[in-house]
Amino acid sequence: MNSPRILEIRRSVLEKNDVLAQNLRARFTAAGVLVINLVSSPGAGKTALLEATLRHLRENGIGAAALVGDLATDNDAQRLARSGAPVRQIVTGGNCHLEADMIETHLADWGLALDSLDCLFIENVGNLVCPASYDLGEHLRVVLFSVTEGEDKPLKYPIIFNTADVAIITKIDLAAAVEFDRDAATAAIHAVHPGISILETSAKTGKGMSNWLDYLNTCRNSFALHRITP
Amino acid sequence: MNSPRILEIRRSVLEKNDVLAQNLRARFTAAGVLVINLVSSPGAGKTALLEATLRHLRENGIGAAALVGDLATDNDAQRLARSGAPVRQIVTGGNCHLEADMIETHLADWGLALDSLDCLFIENVGNLVCPASYDLGEHLRVVLFSVTEGEDKPLKYPIIFNTADVAIITKIDLAAAVEFDRDAATAAIHAVHPGISILETSAKTGKGMSNWLDYLNTCRNSFALHRITP
Repeated sequence: MNSPRILEIRRSVLEKNDVLAQNLRARFTAAGVLVINLVSSPGAGKTALLEATLRHLRENGIGAAALVGDLATDNDAQRLARSGAPVRQIVTGGNCHLEADMIETHLADWGLALDSLDCLFIENVGNLVCPASYDLGEHLRVVLFSVTEGEDKPLKYPIIFNTADVAIITKIDLAAAVEFDRDAATAAIHAVHPGISILETSAKTGKGMSNWLDYLNTCRNSFALHRITP
Repeated sequence: MNSPRILEIRRSVLEKNDVLAQNLRARFTAAGVLVINLVSSPGAGKTALLEATLRHLRENGIGAAALVGDLATDNDAQRLARSGAPVRQIVTGGNCHLEADMIETHLADWGLALDSLDCLFIENVGNLVCPASYDLGEHLRVVLFSVTEGEDKPLKYPIIFNTADVAIITKIDLAAAVEFDRDAATAAIHAVHPGISILETSAKTGKGMSNWLDYLNTCRNSFALHRITP
């Protein structure tokens, strides 16, 4: 029940965001930084996965940094900084998602040398709805979905699963405790996004982390190849 | 971020919503129906709690019905209908929250006799951000928060915890498996909403359900009292 006027305003906000996002992506690509946007509902485990990922990349000499969005607090930035990677918190105030201009502003303030990085992760606000509509200039959108959320969530939040490049089922260590139905979850994800790659991880036990890191490495390689191939 | 024009439009949408919500609340109060708005992140267990609640109320001769909001699918309405209570699904399309005009429209189409009801539950879209800003004419706003989401979520999503009348910590059967820190969670909830009542439930084991049903009963009684007291 939005009026045509509201819909028109919303369209113009999205169009403005898309232009900014395209410029950001061109900048990231030129600097050789693969940018990954992590989206999920609150508490699906974005920060835990990201902390482990940053730690691993750093140990392997891969330059990575993170921008992390939350309505309030810098808890996540503090957690992520333990990995040793450069991290910056974006506090959105009331905003339920990140937008391209927030990324642009914070990058400018941060003074991070993009050229020195291999990967930049953006941890979005925990929300399965609104972040789906906002391109942040990323190359890769990763949707996380924990076994505790219920297998039908992809059917109920189709846009975010449809616009993601890969889905990660998290907290797989809890699968038995919550009687997680893997086939039903996979079917739900593929119903809204046929053929999307699905990974499984547990930040607690480390299960599946090597598959995720291999996936990321493949993306980095094909990104590098794509950049130098005309 | 947002231009003054966007903020102005948003304010006018909220003001329009508030007027509609106040009218709805007056109608609900006149009909003697206690209206409860359930909010949480996706997968926190709103539907499971509501199904058990509807079943219990029905068995005890208390007339209850439910309106349930989702971006897509009528899965939740189908689940809730198993309780035998009248249930209607609101599919919001792209909208990340329910608004008062959706409640008004669906009530009109539904043809539900409000006078015959004691309680009407509204299950909001799973989202810890946007539903906080939209009054639906409810008398009671209940925020659910599962032990798997992380104890600091109230600090990161303060508005929804601040605007709720009661907080329910759900999936308490998983507390040990996820090493849930009850004191930290309670402190986080009380930091953003001092003194709010906190209940704990498990829809799986039934633990805490009687406390929740007692709480609901107390609200019903004080609502009835309030209505007849000038």
